[in-house]
Amino acid sequence: MDRLYYGGDYNPEHWSPEVWDEDLKLMAEASVSMVTVGIFSWAQVEPRPGEYDFGWFDTVMDKLAAGGVDACLATMTASPPPWLSQRHPEILPVRVDGTRLSAGARQQFCPSSPVYREHAARLVEQVATRYAGHPALKMWHIGNEFGCHIRACYCDVSAAAFRDWLRDRYQSIEALNAAWSTTFWSQRYGDWAEIEPPRVAPTFPNPAQQLDYHRFSSDASLGCYLTEREVLSRVTPGVPVTTNFVGLVQKALDWHSWTPHEDVVSLDSYPDPYDPRGHVEAAFAYDLVRSTKDGQPWLLLEQAPSAVNWRTRNSPKPPGAMRLGSWQAVARGAAAVLFFQWRQTAGGAEKFHSAMVPHGGRDTRAYREVADLGRELASVPQLAGSRVKADVAILHDWNSWWALELDSHPSDDLRQLDAHLAHYAPLFDANVTCDVVRPTRELSGYKLVVVPNLYLMDAGVAENLRSYVAGGGHLVVSFFSGIVDENDRAYLGGYPAPLRDVLGLKVDEFWPLPEGGSIGLSVDGTGASATIWSEWVETEGASVVATFGDGELAGRPGVTRNTFGDGVAWYLATRPDAATLRALLDRITAEAGVSPVLPGLPEGVQAVVRHGAEGQYLFLLNHGAEAVTVTLPSPAPDLLTDPGRPTEAVLLAPRGVAVLLGSFT
Amino acid sequence: MDRLYYGGDYNPEHWSPEVWDEDLKLMAEASVSMVTVGIFSWAQVEPRPGEYDFGWFDTVMDKLAAGGVDACLATMTASPPPWLSQRHPEILPVRVDGTRLSAGARQQFCPSSPVYREHAARLVEQVATRYAGHPALKMWHIGNEFGCHIRACYCDVSAAAFRDWLRDRYQSIEALNAAWSTTFWSQRYGDWAEIEPPRVAPTFPNPAQQLDYHRFSSDASLGCYLTEREVLSRVTPGVPVTTNFVGLVQKALDWHSWTPHEDVVSLDSYPDPYDPRGHVEAAFAYDLVRSTKDGQPWLLLEQAPSAVNWRTRNSPKPPGAMRLGSWQAVARGAAAVLFFQWRQTAGGAEKFHSAMVPHGGRDTRAYREVADLGRELASVPQLAGSRVKADVAILHDWNSWWALELDSHPSDDLRQLDAHLAHYAPLFDANVTCDVVRPTRELSGYKLVVVPNLYLMDAGVAENLRSYVAGGGHLVVSFFSGIVDENDRAYLGGYPAPLRDVLGLKVDEFWPLPEGGSIGLSVDGTGASATIWSEWVETEGASVVATFGDGELAGRPGVTRNTFGDGVAWYLATRPDAATLRALLDRITAEAGVSPVLPGLPEGVQAVVRHGAEGQYLFLLNHGAEAVTVTLPSPAPDLLTDPGRPTEAVLLAPRGVAVLLGSFT
Amino acid sequence: MDRLYYGGDYNPEHWSPEVWDEDLKLMAEASVSMVTVGIFSWAQVEPRPGEYDFGWFDTVMDKLAAGGVDACLATMTASPPPWLSQRHPEILPVRVDGTRLSAGARQQFCPSSPVYREHAARLVEQVATRYAGHPALKMWHIGNEFGCHIRACYCDVSAAAFRDWLRDRYQSIEALNAAWSTTFWSQRYGDWAEIEPPRVAPTFPNPAQQLDYHRFSSDASLGCYLTEREVLSRVTPGVPVTTNFVGLVQKALDWHSWTPHEDVVSLDSYPDPYDPRGHVEAAFAYDLVRSTKDGQPWLLLEQAPSAVNWRTRNSPKPPGAMRLGSWQAVARGAAAVLFFQWRQTAGGAEKFHSAMVPHGGRDTRAYREVADLGRELASVPQLAGSRVKADVAILHDWNSWWALELDSHPSDDLRQLDAHLAHYAPLFDANVTCDVVRPTRELSGYKLVVVPNLYLMDAGVAENLRSYVAGGGHLVVSFFSGIVDENDRAYLGGYPAPLRDVLGLKVDEFWPLPEGGSIGLSVDGTGASATIWSEWVETEGASVVATFGDGELAGRPGVTRNTFGDGVAWYLATRPDAATLRALLDRITAEAGVSPVLPGLPEGVQAVVRHGAEGQYLFLLNHGAEAVTVTLPSPAPDLLTDPGRPTEAVLLAPRGVAVLLGSFT
Repeated sequence: MDRLYYGGDYNPEHWSPEVWDEDLKLMAEASVSMVTVGIFSWAQVEPRPGEYDFGWFDTVMDKLAAGGVDACLATMTASPPPWLSQRHPEILPVRVDGTRLSAGARQQFCPSSPVYREHAARLVEQVATRYAGHPALKMWHIGNEFGCHIRACYCDVSAAAFRDWLRDRYQSIEALNAAWSTTFWSQRYGDWAEIEPPRVAPTFPNPAQQLDYHRFSSDASLGCYLTEREVLSRVTPGVPVTTNFVGLVQKALDWHSWTPHEDVVSLDSYPDPYDPRGHVEAAFAYDLVRSTKDGQPWLLLEQAPSAVNWRTRNSPKPPGAMRLGSWQAVARGAAAVLFFQWRQTAGGAEKFHSAMVPHGGRDTRAYREVADLGRELASVPQLAGSRVKADVAILHDWNSWWALELDSHPSDDLRQLDAHLAHYAPLFDANVTCDVVRPTRELSGYKLVVVPNLYLMDAGVAENLRSYVAGGGHLVVSFFSGIVDENDRAYLGGYPAPLRDVLGLKVDEFWPLPEGGSIGLSVDGTGASATIWSEWVETEGASVVATFGDGELAGRPGVTRNTFGDGVAWYLATRPDAATLRALLDRITAEAGVSPVLPGLPEGVQAVVRHGAEGQYLFLLNHGAEAVTVTLPSPAPDLLTDPGRPTEAVLLAPRGVAVLLGSFT
Repeated sequence: MDRLYYGGDYNPEHWSPEVWDEDLKLMAEASVSMVTVGIFSWAQVEPRPGEYDFGWFDTVMDKLAAGGVDACLATMTASPPPWLSQRHPEILPVRVDGTRLSAGARQQFCPSSPVYREHAARLVEQVATRYAGHPALKMWHIGNEFGCHIRACYCDVSAAAFRDWLRDRYQSIEALNAAWSTTFWSQRYGDWAEIEPPRVAPTFPNPAQQLDYHRFSSDASLGCYLTEREVLSRVTPGVPVTTNFVGLVQKALDWHSWTPHEDVVSLDSYPDPYDPRGHVEAAFAYDLVRSTKDGQPWLLLEQAPSAVNWRTRNSPKPPGAMRLGSWQAVARGAAAVLFFQWRQTAGGAEKFHSAMVPHGGRDTRAYREVADLGRELASVPQLAGSRVKADVAILHDWNSWWALELDSHPSDDLRQLDAHLAHYAPLFDANVTCDVVRPTRELSGYKLVVVPNLYLMDAGVAENLRSYVAGGGHLVVSFFSGIVDENDRAYLGGYPAPLRDVLGLKVDEFWPLPEGGSIGLSVDGTGASATIWSEWVETEGASVVATFGDGELAGRPGVTRNTFGDGVAWYLATRPDAATLRALLDRITAEAGVSPVLPGLPEGVQAVVRHGAEGQYLFLLNHGAEAVTVTLPSPAPDLLTDPGRPTEAVLLAPRGVAVLLGSFT
Repeated sequence: MDRLYYGGDYNPEHWSPEVWDEDLKLMAEASVSMVTVGIFSWAQVEPRPGEYDFGWFDTVMDKLAAGGVDACLATMTASPPPWLSQRHPEILPVRVDGTRLSAGARQQFCPSSPVYREHAARLVEQVATRYAGHPALKMWHIGNEFGCHIRACYCDVSAAAFRDWLRDRYQSIEALNAAWSTTFWSQRYGDWAEIEPPRVAPTFPNPAQQLDYHRFSSDASLGCYLTEREVLSRVTPGVPVTTNFVGLVQKALDWHSWTPHEDVVSLDSYPDPYDPRGHVEAAFAYDLVRSTKDGQPWLLLEQAPSAVNWRTRNSPKPPGAMRLGSWQAVARGAAAVLFFQWRQTAGGAEKFHSAMVPHGGRDTRAYREVADLGRELASVPQLAGSRVKADVAILHDWNSWWALELDSHPSDDLRQLDAHLAHYAPLFDANVTCDVVRPTRELSGYKLVVVPNLYLMDAGVAENLRSYVAGGGHLVVSFFSGIVDENDRAYLGGYPAPLRDVLGLKVDEFWPLPEGGSIGLSVDGTGASATIWSEWVETEGASVVATFGDGELAGRPGVTRNTFGDGVAWYLATRPDAATLRALLDRITAEAGVSPVLPGLPEGVQAVVRHGAEGQYLFLLNHGAEAVTVTLPSPAPDLLTDPGRPTEAVLLAPRGVAVLLGSFT
């Protein structure tokens, strides 16, 4: 990326051509440099099967080119026109209970449907051929928000595709029976034809079958993506390709299997403005999406200028909040700040979703903030190529997430995102920058690795962690990690069997807490509390850092520390309260030699550094309600206010932002 | 109506003929003058297709005639017999998710079903022909509680009928595409055949499609009604026709499109006895049903003598409560007080629904109160023709209600009935009589018009309000009114665009409150609070009456007042707490020259006046827990205690009632 | 039973033969004497239709015989293999809304399916023939947990079977119409073919139809059981047959119609370890299952060694709790203590269900406690044949339970188990031993009979209670008893009509309390409170023991006492708070001459006596958190600590147990 892109989804088909001219004028005023066009244009460009009407779209593309606005051109396949499902109702997705969904909203296709894929590929061939070489074409946007509404389809077409997928994976029915533990409950399969998706059953369906259906469903959507990508690579080989993941972190798709097939990764981000900590969740998502491409800049492809319309109650973003959140994305590696959408629609299901140009038009608070931010971002193009670096890695894996949240577990309170955020938030608050990486990744470059509830851990991952610690790494593992293998089969011999030696302990039994329950915790003699979980730990070499304070487990280990090889491995047998976990992680990071971006920052100030060719960019973002002054380690200019004059201290208003050029780490 | 009718649903088929004789004796004892008969008799009178058995019903009708009890004769089509759906399963209604419902309860027919309609019409022809001219026949009761359980059907028969209905409405598919904003999410239709009902879809279905499905579904039930009415008008041209709406206010049917086809309107009313304010909701429903026929007396066709059986927990009505509630209906214009049902059934789904003759028989509290009230009502026949008058109109519109409560809005907390009652209750408590009228109605006869959340407002309605205020009217508009047109398309140019000049302001952005949230409000410097909603208002001529007291909107307008033409228009940008709204409305009514029925009444005393040929009837109803004395403006006799002797003051026991003849307004 | 059996479900197919050898070694170590084998072996022994592979199972049976472990041999039909439903999808059960369930879990068969029954019978023939006379075969276990997941099936096969069942029951369609009160809502049937199961309907389905569907569904599962039993009785005539009921008390199956066909009755018991009163519910289930066979020893066929995995959150059993709960079962008549399951599975839906041998193996707390208890139970074989005796009977009837919890009742708060436990718990706490018996049973042997919410009461039961009281019995009847007959038709003439003379009162009207509501109660002038319900009682000879203290019913009777014949009948018109009900029942038991097992026991100590050939066994179980000392009426030896030495007092640690031999009653 050669600049910080700014813009949003542009759906000109909602408006008359006179409005298009006003659009281009306003885009210039707001420094818009990129729009995503055509996402829902299928029914307009192919009004009847095989009949195309691209004339109006040519006009739009030409106007964009003339206006100097780049097109992130959608393949237009996100939502098939009514004629497709009317002629081929078998493409409509089916729920787990057998309900076939209807057209009339969007995304109404079974991702395994060959009929859908053929029609989509035929359209993409048209679009790609027509706009190959068009001066506005900057990038391809395949589909839209894959898996957002249809996380899995349970139709008979999907069932057949699932059987093919399983045959590929397991080769023999005996291997599948072993992987799925089908001796349990008399589920042994004699033939592939006997296998169905995990539809609604009398009680808990086979967990390995459910886990494989998650994998299959992610791959089914990926299949749609790859079908289109194949066309684009052939017709327009040099144009980069992306698709937008649904944020925060999307459960349905295993990003790690997608991003190798993307030239740039993109994220949609919709933190809830009612949530005072929504920016922490957003930051986590940004760190993850950045890490899927090892730090390569990514695109914030969608965010809301103000309110959304799809929550039960939808708050606007207060004055300054949109700017603050946009800068946060840039601070954490974004190369583009784009919105859904350019102009607020008068009709349809998202007419109350805010837009860059609201129903009220140009004379609105929202538009004014949009235009101001556009100008501001355009003033710092040099940020585009710089990168974030981190000493701490948090492990995240979709296979484990899917497995962790299956039914029939010790406690339904174990939610992957809760676990991630519980461990991520104290590091965020301490301004310790983290990557969020796949567990199979080489880890030796990190000073600290945090493993929250990595329930499923195949042998390779366990070995990766072992050698990391043995080689001198610092490791934090939370409870209920390393419990099952890739087929959701428990490791025998004392939990967590593959890490017992690394952690220097075994867990005799899980003691999840009752609903809303808490348990006392004693850390160095100080009383604290913990929630969600406890367990009966027997140390085998580890030293006890905290003990449970009450109940049947009183006096037993709650937090331990073990040296293993040249490294150190910590274990959390419960979820300590936020303050206690913050203190523990402060101690652990200090021991690991991990430093915050800046020490001693006021509460609520976020600090991140991007490393560029000409120096380091320090982003300071004030999430607090009060103005604060940050003294810099050495004088540096604030690029947003006075790029030419170094300053010794920065005054940050509430929701204030500063971008300082200098050397900070 | 020449008298106050009294009685209830009579289902003689549950009992042997000996019981019928006892029934007639008890009806005489309880002064019963009308019963609704035959509602669920289809399976008895047509036990097999085309075979009729009316003999037993002849006997019942003859006994009624002999006993001087009028028959409100049902067309017997409310619940088809099992043989109909067994032979024609396609008549069974289908839920939005595709579940086909079963027989075994009641109302198991798709209202669009031609098979159902033909069988119903064939039966009505038989019934009407047989009882034309029967001395007991006083009135026809078509069907029963249309739309009570089946608010919409989503079967394929309905889909075809929906397409026909749309073709009638829009004439061209292009017009439909425009009205439904189908450019959004690639929903453009190329042909009528592609259109389906808004069944369960991957996410929010098209809102205009949903809105039209509400309209269509109301019309589908109306089609059933009109099919039967056609037979009755032909066979028994002089006999008035009614059908009973389900109270409180029924969402499924647009009463305003039904009542032109009814000779008398009827309402079922089941306020919850646990709810200390249930009578306010009931009053609102009574004012609405009365207003649909411009004040013509209406029938309270069903109420419970005591408990119902279909709530989660069902309280009986305490001693006196049934009488008080019955008199409230009369006070607000009812010409009949009827119950469901005469004699409590031993079996079936409503055996625990109270009846005029309970399981315990004649020696029960409920029966005694029923018989007492019958005698009391019979003593004041002169009330029957008198009418209620009101200076205040509240606007209610089904199209707007349906649209308001669609998904994907700024806040799901916006519920039409809540909005209505929030504004109606303070007027009720102040004993200001209201009509509840359609927005297209001529309004100049009213001194004040209140518009709670009239989200959908077509151009004609906006013009109606503008000319009303310009002509000197007083108007109160609450937030989120005038937002969309008849196709649920937002008006552009600053909310509420069609009323900005009338109100002297624009709304820049909606700020709905979080769940259970409240916001401070400062009215003339006094602190108050508000709930549900706030918004960013920019005045354009209006004066600010109250400002928000805290949060991001602190100091911005919360309540405004604007003069426009010869009138005044108030705007509520939030929902003030009850006391604050009461004070505001007291000020507004005073300014508009609206007076309470009687000034200075004790809290909890309801006062309404009916205007008759021989004078005014003042109803005083004590809803409070204490006895109170009401001093009259001039001496008047209480028709219920001593009709011959004027009194200067009335003592009302708790749940006490007085009906005074005199001149009060 | 000649001993106290100990063991659990054994599923060797999950493991390799080497593990089987370790299993037998550990079974010996843990004194295991019986295992339930083969429950889910169908897919292993019949991998393809008609092809059998019993070789591996022969090995297991031989090893068990060699190890001296008895086999409770399952008929292997609990969960059909995937090939069966793939070839015959019509065997898959269908939900009330029409959703057809899928294979992939367990119990995926319609109990009315002839295809399932034929395949099951064919398999049972194979199993029975093969293992007839095998030295390990001790008992047959038919199916498993009938009705656990599939409480009723609503498919078309079931519909046809239901029609046959109805034809048997009613003989004529006229009789069915009368029993089902089909004049209500026009539901009259002209032909059997018109009848469907009570599937989802527009509103409440016919209650008598629902009630009969409960009866039919219990009989449908019983039909499966009897189909298998017929084979076993023919092939292995001398071997006793059982099946395991799901505890606590299972609603789907009418145990009273099953137990005549069982040689021994069995129960699964899974009290929630989070629930400090879980043992009271368990005790109630034990007393009921024992009473179904008039005190014959029964089998605790399944319990968890520690945590289960199917609740939302699953607590382990703290140290000592499993032992305490096991002894409680023995105290209340069990002849076997068995677990699900022997060895914790690595995969499948129950891998986190605890087992006798956990994932962690032999060196675990759970295994140690299991092995200790095995040795302890083996030390007291003499307990096996002894029996519990009771002076108090609580009436329980499935027909009434089903009817009570149907929809459209005065209050949904009436739950049969809540009512039972409300009345049972104070007796349990007072150490008054109860039987829980069917209402048609001869009652004269009991000193006191308690009738909690026996809503449905046919004429025979009413007569049974009348003659019991007339003959000198003491009776306690709670509200909403004796309301309807066997067809759910209300008795007319004042509630509870069939018992009005016995109770000396009538109930004019039900006054259920609002959600979470309570009402004051005055007992002998002392203030108390009550919940759930109140009602308007008119005494007709009964004396008033307590009155309502507030609200509309203030001063009216809340609890009454009536002498009738030679006996006494109490009536509870509400549910008094626990302390008040305890005091009332203390007074009532004292009057009836009922004594606690031991007087003056410390709070939390459970005492039960089993009567054996050589004397009485007094079980003392400490459920409290503190150690307590119990002084015995006369010295007796504690069989668990020092069988040879009588002691005057027993010290019970928390969760402590003592079994004393002597004479105590």
